[in-house]
Amino acid sequence: MLQKEEVSPEAGLMTFPGFPVVLVCVDKNIITIAAVSFFSFVKPMVMIGIVPSRYSFELIKKTQDFSLNLPTTELLPAIKYCGSHSGRDCDKFAETGLTPVPGKKITSVFIEECPVSLECKVINEINQGGTHIWFIGEIVTSYVRKDYSRQQAILYWPREYRTVGNILK
Amino acid sequence: MLQKEEVSPEAGLMTFPGFPVVLVCVDKNIITIAAVSFFSFVKPMVMIGIVPSRYSFELIKKTQDFSLNLPTTELLPAIKYCGSHSGRDCDKFAETGLTPVPGKKITSVFIEECPVSLECKVINEINQGGTHIWFIGEIVTSYVRKDYSRQQAILYWPREYRTVGNILK
Repeated sequence: MLQKEEVSPEAGLMTFPGFPVVLVCVDKNIITIAAVSFFSFVKPMVMIGIVPSRYSFELIKKTQDFSLNLPTTELLPAIKYCGSHSGRDCDKFAETGLTPVPGKKITSVFIEECPVSLECKVINEINQGGTHIWFIGEIVTSYVRKDYSRQQAILYWPREYRTVGNILK
Repeated sequence: MLQKEEVSPEAGLMTFPGFPVVLVCVDKNIITIAAVSFFSFVKPMVMIGIVPSRYSFELIKKTQDFSLNLPTTELLPAIKYCGSHSGRDCDKFAETGLTPVPGKKITSVFIEECPVSLECKVINEINQGGTHIWFIGEIVTSYVRKDYSRQQAILYWPREYRTVGNILK
């Protein structure tokens, strides 16, 4: 077994495994996010991290809500488009062909083509002076396609999208 | 394409895809955690969620530090053991055969057999009254085996461990 070598905190963090890719709508814009986690199971909450220079950051400060949409592999071109263009310069729904649906309990829209959509209201914002500011959202309602399976998830880490692998016995 | 159906927030959250499994040491105890995320790339930070009834929760309130260790599939028996037993009742290093290494900048130990170990100091605690309280940790130093690849990560969601899948083109 190779010995571990001490490296910088930044280099250590770069080994971190991938997270699920989600499409987040704030107002009528879409952002591709892998800075995402559940936060709590009872009083169901999720959290998303946004870099403050992003257009969605401006928007979420106004809406105080967002929808979190789980994509499938067929949506990879839209995922890549929404992750590499700014809503300041284009209408991402028009460009990707995705369909916005008005939120029921939030002002932000959600995405028709995603098999899961969670409507979330921001209840806290965590700023530790790093690259990302995190928004904790309470899920106020959600929509799920009956045929959805978590194994359709897409994982992300810098410059790589991956599928989920096999179950370990 | 099937239509989505509106479901409860709890049911919506249950569709959430898996997260990397990590072994976290607090003091000399080990806990298996999938409530984990990076928090910031510059000023490198991670965060972990712990249920307050857990032994590690008591410990982290005292140590204010932890190590985050990335396991490989060979460690699955230890991962399962540490996720289903309490350090109140046993010595998890003795039971799993894992080797504790003293932290250099933290009071908690790290795990020799894990290819990546990050030493983290708690800088904030986020409590929104849900099932988990989250601890944000700044990475103060880290150790990486040269042959480590992120594709060795193990994903978790309730009752399932999975490998990472193929790269999507």
